This record gives sequence, structure tokens and C-alpha cells, in this order.
Amino acid sequence: MAVRSVEENAALLSFDELRAQLRAVGEERYHHQHPFHLMMHEGRLSRGQLQAWALNRYYYQSMIPIKDSIILSRGPEPVFRRAWRKRVVDHDGDATSEGGIKRWLKLAEASGLNADQVRAGTGILPATRFAVNEYLNIVRSRSLLEAVASSLTELFSRDLITLRMEKMRQHYPWLSGGLDYFEARLTQAPEDAKFAINYVFENAKTRHEQELATQSLRDKCDILWAQLDALYFAYVQPGWPPPGAFRMKEEGA
Amino acid sequence: MAVRSVEENAALLSFDELRAQLRAVGEERYHHQHPFHLMMHEGRLSRGQLQAWALNRYYYQSMIPIKDSIILSRGPEPVFRRAWRKRVVDHDGDATSEGGIKRWLKLAEASGLNADQVRAGTGILPATRFAVNEYLNIVRSRSLLEAVASSLTELFSRDLITLRMEKMRQHYPWLSGGLDYFEARLTQAPEDAKFAINYVFENAKTRHEQELATQSLRDKCDILWAQLDALYFAYVQPGWPPPGAFRMKEEGA
Repeated sequence: MAVRSVEENAALLSFDELRAQLRAVGEERYHHQHPFHLMMHEGRLSRGQLQAWALNRYYYQSMIPIKDSIILSRGPEPVFRRAWRKRVVDHDGDATSEGGIKRWLKLAEASGLNADQVRAGTGILPATRFAVNEYLNIVRSRSLLEAVASSLTELFSRDLITLRMEKMRQHYPWLSGGLDYFEARLTQAPEDAKFAINYVFENAKTRHEQELATQSLRDKCDILWAQLDALYFAYVQPGWPPPGAFRMKEEGA
Repeated sequence: MAVRSVEENAALLSFDELRAQLRAVGEERYHHQHPFHLMMHEGRLSRGQLQAWALNRYYYQSMIPIKDSIILSRGPEPVFRRAWRKRVVDHDGDATSEGGIKRWLKLAEASGLNADQVRAGTGILPATRFAVNEYLNIVRSRSLLEAVASSLTELFSRDLITLRMEKMRQHYPWLSGGLDYFEARLTQAPEDAKFAINYVFENAKTRHEQELATQSLRDKCDILWAQLDALYFAYVQPGWPPPGAFRMKEEGA
């Protein structure tokens, strides 16, 4: 995706202007507006649809520490790598914490899926894999600045997670035992976003670089959005899961 | 996607058995069965829907010689590279031929799109880019055997293209001036498939390698299928093109 053109020698955005520009991307493209999430929050998803979501999003969750390890491998400074390493720990766990991947499996189990089957990835939509793998492509092939900027959806995730936890407890009480993942992200994501936005502001030395960073966030939003499109099309619309994909059990939806 | 497990020391498939196994993948997963194509062949697509298809598939076409150049760069033998180089020529052209990308642009123009806009890629669905980029991931990251095997959808394309040309002339006569791409593929694809299946048979030394090759074809089919899912969802179902994507003009569909 070509970066939006700005005038030659356009003035560097201030921190507040850059943050406002990034927030505007979120308003337009972050997946809080996606109809699959709207249905989720209105209590209109069936158990099978929530299972399809938990299963597919597990692939995303499982790739996040790989994505962050790629960024880690590209960070030239110990101080950067120490800060970024926290993300790998947050997802993979350590001696004192089980980590986000394990917590996501608990959510999948609460939805009624078997954790081993979720971990094996059987029945994940190809479109989910393609979208998530593009996130790896971005952090491998673009500049470190753009790789860091692609994480900035974390600027928006706290509000979405707060709403989601409330709505899940209300509409899907049988999921309530599986919300540890979201609980942890309420504090992790804002810390991570703060570091990343400061890094982007300090390391984007030209307006063009600020636009490249903004484009990376736009592309990351598309990656999240496309995952929900694929779920909606296969499991909500009278669509068709592709050959080999997870099929919902018959139930009152 | 994990390769299907076969018994330890399972017997190597003969050429005919391997070809039958590959053809069975096509029966199950090749996009000739996709509802978007069924609608196309029944004359039920609007001009706007065909434009969305031509626009999005241009991204696929434009990446094919890049995909083949990656394979070219991995081919250790001049004789292999000479054979594979033909594919790059077929798509990029030479002094005597305009090449497949140019021909696809003529199809897009016949549909009513502007060639420069198609070339710029504005409005292509993110899901199209993710699926196509996965094809590049596969030929970069898997073995050369698997990279070659992923091209084997060409075993199936002649029948589909023959049918498509007939149905396009019948239902969308205004597209008839743009069918040179398909005309050329009628002879190119079978030649390419013949080389590739012979290469796969000769270079897969174990049953496990034959299964890896089969899995690559399965994954390639998923890449084609997912592109049509994304089109169907955005432009046929009462879905929603994501922010920034091509929008159809109002018309009688």
C-alpha cells in the first residue's frame, strides 16, 4: 500500500499532532467498528460463532511473540531490546506468569473447545493465516520504525477490551472464567503503546517517515479487520467455511 | 498447515498415483467450484462485480512473475532456470510479446476500468494482498520442491479457462475484446504444468516429500479460493468493502 503523499518538505508533526493523526486512523479502521464485534457486544453471537472466533484468533495470538521476536532481532540497542522483550514475556510467560497464549487457550476452553485442538490449529481459516502472516511480513521487510508503528493498535485496545469484558460477562456468562487474557491486556497494552508511540515520535525524523509510520498502523488495522471479515463470511452470513475449516455444530444461533 | 501424516516408510507413489492425488486436491479445493465463479459463468455478475474481480486479480497477476523470479533465484541448475524463466517472460513480455500482465490490463480496460488506476492498485482488498503475499511466503520459505509444486494449479486451469472464455463471450460480450490473456494461457499453462509435475515426481524422493508437495498444492488452492471469498463478501453478499477499497457504482445488478 503506497503511503499517502505529503507535500515536499511538509512540516514535521508535533507529538500531539502525530498522536491525533494515529488516533484518526483508529477511528476509521480499527476493528472496534467491525460488525462481528458489534454483534458480539450485543449478545448476538452463538456459542459456535464465538468458538470460531476464539479458534481463529488463537493463530493471531500465537504469532504475536514471533512478531515481537522479529522486532527484537532488529533492535540495535540493548535499551530498546529490554523494553521490547517485555512483550515476548507477556505472551510466552515466565516463572511467575503463564503468559497470554496460555490465557487465550483458557478462553478457548471456556468457549467449549479442546485446548490441544486449538493449539494444533486444525480448522483455522486460510484467510486468518494469510492476514496474520502479513503482519510478520511487515515487521520483517519494512524499517524498524514502521515495524514498531504497526503495534500502535494498542493505543485503541484498552477501550475495546474494557467494553468486551463487560459485554461478555453480561451476554455470555459461561465465558466469564476465561477472561484472564483481557484482564492482563488492560495494563500491558497501554504500557506498550506508550513506549511505541514515543519511539515512533523520536525516530521519525521527517514528515515522510511519520507518514510511513501512519501507513503501517493503517495496514495493521486492515490485518485485524480482514480476520473478522473472514469469520463473518464463513460463520455469520450464510457463507461457506472453505474446505477443511472449522464447522459449527447445529444449534440455535 | 501441517502435512497429512502418512505411515512410516509408506511406499512412494508412482507417477500416475501422484498425479491422481494431485488431481483429487483440485477436485476438492480448486476455485472452479467457488460460487463467485459459478455466478460468473451463469452470467449473474454485474459489471461492477466483474470490475472488482479484474482489479483485485490484477494484484495476483502482477505478483506472478515476482513469485517465479523467487523460484528462479532458488533453482540450482541452468536447465531448471531456463525452463522456469519462460514463466517470467510469459507474464512480463519480451520484444515479440506484450506479456500476461499487459493482457490482464486489457481485460480490466474492457471491463471499464482505467489501466493506470488498476496498475496503481488503489482500492484492492487487503484480503487479496494478504492471500497473494502468502504465495510469495511459500515460494521463499519452503523447499524448492514445494515451491514448484505450488504452481500445479496449472494442471486444472485449462478446463476452467476454456469454460470461462465461452461464458464470457456469451454473457458479457463487452468483455470479448479483453480475452487475450486467457487465450495465451490455454497453451502456456499446460506446458508449465507438464514441466512442474515431472519435476515434482523426479525430485520427491520419499513419500513424505510427495505429501509435502501435495500440501503445497492444497495451500495454493486455498490462496486462490480466499481471493474469491473476499470478493464475494465485499461485492456480492450484502457485505462491506473495507475502508479504502473499490466501491461499485450503483447499477442494476
